[in-house]
Amino acid sequence: MNIGFLGLGTMGAPMARNLLKAGFALRVWNRSRGPVDALATLGATPGATPADAARGAEALIAILSDDDTSRTVLCEGADGGALGALPRGAVVVNMATVSLAFAREMAARCESLGLRYVAAPVLGRVNVAEAGKLNILAAGDASAIDTVQPLFDVLGQRTWRFGDLPEQANVVKLAANFMIASAIESMSEAATLAQGHGVAGADFLEMITTAVFATPAYTGYGGAIAKETFEPAGFKLSLGAKDLRLALLAGEAANVPMPFGTVLRDNHLDSLAHGEGHLDWAALSRVALRRAGLPKTQT
Amino acid sequence: MNIGFLGLGTMGAPMARNLLKAGFALRVWNRSRGPVDALATLGATPGATPADAARGAEALIAILSDDDTSRTVLCEGADGGALGALPRGAVVVNMATVSLAFAREMAARCESLGLRYVAAPVLGRVNVAEAGKLNILAAGDASAIDTVQPLFDVLGQRTWRFGDLPEQANVVKLAANFMIASAIESMSEAATLAQGHGVAGADFLEMITTAVFATPAYTGYGGAIAKETFEPAGFKLSLGAKDLRLALLAGEAANVPMPFGTVLRDNHLDSLAHGEGHLDWAALSRVALRRAGLPKTQT
Amino acid sequence: MNIGFLGLGTMGAPMARNLLKAGFALRVWNRSRGPVDALATLGATPGATPADAARGAEALIAILSDDDTSRTVLCEGADGGALGALPRGAVVVNMATVSLAFAREMAARCESLGLRYVAAPVLGRVNVAEAGKLNILAAGDASAIDTVQPLFDVLGQRTWRFGDLPEQANVVKLAANFMIASAIESMSEAATLAQGHGVAGADFLEMITTAVFATPAYTGYGGAIAKETFEPAGFKLSLGAKDLRLALLAGEAANVPMPFGTVLRDNHLDSLAHGEGHLDWAALSRVALRRAGLPKTQT
Amino acid sequence: MNIGFLGLGTMGAPMARNLLKAGFALRVWNRSRGPVDALATLGATPGATPADAARGAEALIAILSDDDTSRTVLCEGADGGALGALPRGAVVVNMATVSLAFAREMAARCESLGLRYVAAPVLGRVNVAEAGKLNILAAGDASAIDTVQPLFDVLGQRTWRFGDLPEQANVVKLAANFMIASAIESMSEAATLAQGHGVAGADFLEMITTAVFATPAYTGYGGAIAKETFEPAGFKLSLGAKDLRLALLAGEAANVPMPFGTVLRDNHLDSLAHGEGHLDWAALSRVALRRAGLPKTQT
Repeated sequence: MNIGFLGLGTMGAPMARNLLKAGFALRVWNRSRGPVDALATLGATPGATPADAARGAEALIAILSDDDTSRTVLCEGADGGALGALPRGAVVVNMATVSLAFAREMAARCESLGLRYVAAPVLGRVNVAEAGKLNILAAGDASAIDTVQPLFDVLGQRTWRFGDLPEQANVVKLAANFMIASAIESMSEAATLAQGHGVAGADFLEMITTAVFATPAYTGYGGAIAKETFEPAGFKLSLGAKDLRLALLAGEAANVPMPFGTVLRDNHLDSLAHGEGHLDWAALSRVALRRAGLPKTQT
Repeated sequence: MNIGFLGLGTMGAPMARNLLKAGFALRVWNRSRGPVDALATLGATPGATPADAARGAEALIAILSDDDTSRTVLCEGADGGALGALPRGAVVVNMATVSLAFAREMAARCESLGLRYVAAPVLGRVNVAEAGKLNILAAGDASAIDTVQPLFDVLGQRTWRFGDLPEQANVVKLAANFMIASAIESMSEAATLAQGHGVAGADFLEMITTAVFATPAYTGYGGAIAKETFEPAGFKLSLGAKDLRLALLAGEAANVPMPFGTVLRDNHLDSLAHGEGHLDWAALSRVALRRAGLPKTQT
Repeated sequence: MNIGFLGLGTMGAPMARNLLKAGFALRVWNRSRGPVDALATLGATPGATPADAARGAEALIAILSDDDTSRTVLCEGADGGALGALPRGAVVVNMATVSLAFAREMAARCESLGLRYVAAPVLGRVNVAEAGKLNILAAGDASAIDTVQPLFDVLGQRTWRFGDLPEQANVVKLAANFMIASAIESMSEAATLAQGHGVAGADFLEMITTAVFATPAYTGYGGAIAKETFEPAGFKLSLGAKDLRLALLAGEAANVPMPFGTVLRDNHLDSLAHGEGHLDWAALSRVALRRAGLPKTQT
Repeated sequence: MNIGFLGLGTMGAPMARNLLKAGFALRVWNRSRGPVDALATLGATPGATPADAARGAEALIAILSDDDTSRTVLCEGADGGALGALPRGAVVVNMATVSLAFAREMAARCESLGLRYVAAPVLGRVNVAEAGKLNILAAGDASAIDTVQPLFDVLGQRTWRFGDLPEQANVVKLAANFMIASAIESMSEAATLAQGHGVAGADFLEMITTAVFATPAYTGYGGAIAKETFEPAGFKLSLGAKDLRLALLAGEAANVPMPFGTVLRDNHLDSLAHGEGHLDWAALSRVALRRAGLPKTQT
């Protein structure tokens, strides 16, 4: 299968490498040239533009930073954007975390072009992507997903299918990120409560992530909160704020109140207002400490 | 070591059995007679009253339902309550989930009687208690904890020490329960969001508790939410509401805002107002569905 | 001064009438023809299209339902939309409740066309508009506001100026509507609390709006809550939900947490999910009663 | 009618003076002696103890700071507390802001002593008390209220009756104070939103308290927020926090979720954690500014 691949960022690059290793032919494009060249040394064909990378592909994978970038790369540009270069019947696989509205927009555009749009955002960090162990959240036309399932089998340990509407995979991804933010906030409030009574937040967090919540989302973020190590950011708080906004928009579209979600919104804004957007998502914990008038965990 | 043991409920009974099996001499008391007789067949000495069970004990373990019951059993009664029957220097180990104010009250009373008060609430359900694998959260005078550490080694897989003030163990326990409630609410909102967009809540929950939150607090409650199996209750929602109230009181005492905690407070009241207090804590999920005007997960 | 006037809805029609009465020459346009004809009998010149109504005007007043409608009327259409028909130097006065982003967009577009954009949303219901007693919230270039001040003097009892950036008037209007929603929610929770203890919500509301909050926003909405008279809607709950969304977006843009705002968001979604969007804003009170498991106030 | 009067604080002193002026015979007691002497010069009989002031009274008015003080004064002391000194059939009128639980406790105790307990908390500040223009919120046995109605007619401009259970007046008072706190928070968030977009909070507040919320609760607190004049405190933030706690407890007792109430709880704790409890209630506004990373309004 000929594959176009757009977006060789932190996640995209190892995913593309895994596809190459598995024997797929890839034409790749990235906004900056470095990652393209690196992939070329492994056998990928460089694309000069998104459309160039997409030309003739049976499947086009895109994993770009957000709605606006995705739209630009897929639909715009001097040579018409990537979608315009695809042959009828090709499958467009968007693996980025985008809004439901954007998924609907792209699905409609693809349909009008005779293309098939699949949403397939992923769960897992870079090391999981490198190991080909991502969890892939897929939605869209079932036969279209079947077509690209061999790619998913290379990229992930498991593909979860959530429905015929591409946006259904996106809402699942946003709900998952909402739950991760909730875990961070929950640890933050609990550790602050403990600290307010003279128990070191770090001691509390070590216990709770060992005795009750012994799973990476908790141990990872909990460890960062305990040690106040927020740089370099594994996932930036400002990106968490963006995903949360999309989750709340998804809630609005379906009239779903999300009181934890709105608390998270306010706390992310509090963090951004204090210049903490560039820090790791775990830095959200500073809000609880600050509001309680407590020093940082470590001091 | 002679041990008095008060409260042979769901948790207390297997704990007392484990101590007996390990060779400790136990005088036991329970409000209803059945559990006392059961323990007696295993070698425990029945106590006619709390004071009778406490008489001459070097360590007194109490694990009763709440503040009021604990106060009654420890301090009141025709023969003066359990504390009055203890020899000076004895260690009182309160393993129940009680308020910080109660811990302070008991610590002061014990001190005035020449006794040593240790707070040691536990994390773990019945099966964990049976296996002697509890996590024990201990606080109080270090030498007093040292004295009863051999008991903790029988009852639990690990003892976590949190400070010299008994209430510090209680705040840790309340913070832990707050985090469990937060996990339930987080799953509830996320599953409702998914369902609002046509994805079965159960499908979402299976994925998220496999791919991201693969730990018993999530898989257990998540499974119950997915299947809407709220009876029989493993832990009643009304008890969760009580613990949450104590957590918020602990926050008030230290001026710690807890916005997730207050959302949880309101949602528990919503649940109680709809007659769901007798159901399992997982039934908190009904609030999110109800507010979104959605049917129960299964229908 | 020649004036173009776009939008003869509930608010726009009486405002246009007042300008006519004050002797201004008006060319008017409305999506439906009836209100145009009515104004024509009073001396206004009908415009066939927005551009037709705007042609040659020194000032163009627009008061349309939302961002999208405003954009369509001002900027689009076969003959180019209203803005294109204005002479250079004309003042565009947008009196609708729109988003800050829209205000910025229009200000930039006007500048590129050599026009001057003033935001001037109003406070007051229909009867206040009829009486020419509106409060006008104005922002934009000071000399542009000076130019249209004679119009504001006819329409309102007072013009409040909030800055050089048009969006500053919009944020003030959104903040005002947020406060009205907060008053409704505050009454709802308080009345529900009273009712939960056997005091009729209506009795509580009569007292509080007499003894403490004797001002129309409270007496009006409080009376509607007390009597459960939500139809016909003076201002629809669904419109309140829209304004609240815009207020929260304004908060996001400036990193301002708004915990009352987010509670209101969730409660409006709860109301919409229960099919109450067409009712008067006062129907938000049903959420508090419903969550407390209480019957409606009157029953 | 012989009247006992306990508590000559900021509110109690002018109320007692008004009763004297109206010709009632008063025996008065206060914790500190100064106010007693001052009343004596106006014709009141000093009581050496609460019981001494209550002796022989047909009606006993108490207006003390909180539950604990009220209980001490009414029920304890070397000579048995005030209640014990009253003749059977006397009416006990508690005009303080106390908890519902306390009202129930006192009502039961009075009943057991053959006394009649009326709850009658008031709305209005000192100047209103001086003018005899309070709003009196009364609940309890109707004939008992009838008995003391002549006193209420002196103290207030209007008596509102809310039911046969004394606690019903207390819940109304707590609901009223919750609404005042909500007004403060609403102004705080709105002014912060405006300020986040470059509009002075003071300008916004002047407009909104003139154009929409022209009523003392808004103009008074709004003016204080605008000018950042929080000392001397008209009503201390720490007292507001106490009343709010009682309102939330009343909500818990009736399973009434109060999401505005819980936001207020957290914000009051935030304020207390930052050492602002001694400031005027209006200082709650600092929380919103602080969270948004904005300077105080005036700077």
